[in-house]
Amino acid sequence: MPSYHAKVFVTLKPSILDPQGRTVERALTHLDHANVTGVRVGKYIELTLSGERPAVEAQLSEIVGNVLSNPIMEDARWELTEAEPVGA
Amino acid sequence: MPSYHAKVFVTLKPSILDPQGRTVERALTHLDHANVTGVRVGKYIELTLSGERPAVEAQLSEIVGNVLSNPIMEDARWELTEAEPVGA
Repeated sequence: MPSYHAKVFVTLKPSILDPQGRTVERALTHLDHANVTGVRVGKYIELTLSGERPAVEAQLSEIVGNVLSNPIMEDARWELTEAEPVGA
Repeated sequence: MPSYHAKVFVTLKPSILDPQGRTVERALTHLDHANVTGVRVGKYIELTLSGERPAVEAQLSEIVGNVLSNPIMEDARWELTEAEPVGA
């Protein structure tokens, strides 16, 4: 069965305050990086799924929307690439 | 002055245990996603830097290595794209 590597990017929606990003930004300003703005901290998740591509895409979409992100507050996008077969 | 959008991806080194990823993986198994393996949870950070490209690249490299990641335990990579000028 083929398997696929997925990369998932979860970010807070632009309208949601990001205290962690603000804290990083303030720290950078104190470290003489005052030209840095708009820091937003999100999640980056890697996972591997086995199965046929259409099924894996549907499954990943469900996992991303229901488990890995909170659609009320977060945006999520993902990329899928076929994994090299073991022993190929 | 031009400005640049940076995307930073911070992941735990492969040899470092990832309890958060293991927890997500176990939860997915219980939710009938037993074909999901290798879950690793990292950070995804967006920021904007103003300045000329060579200076911004050097600055971002330093920020990523010294502030946004812990090089002992984490790998980090980044992408830089020029921001659209305001009012263009």
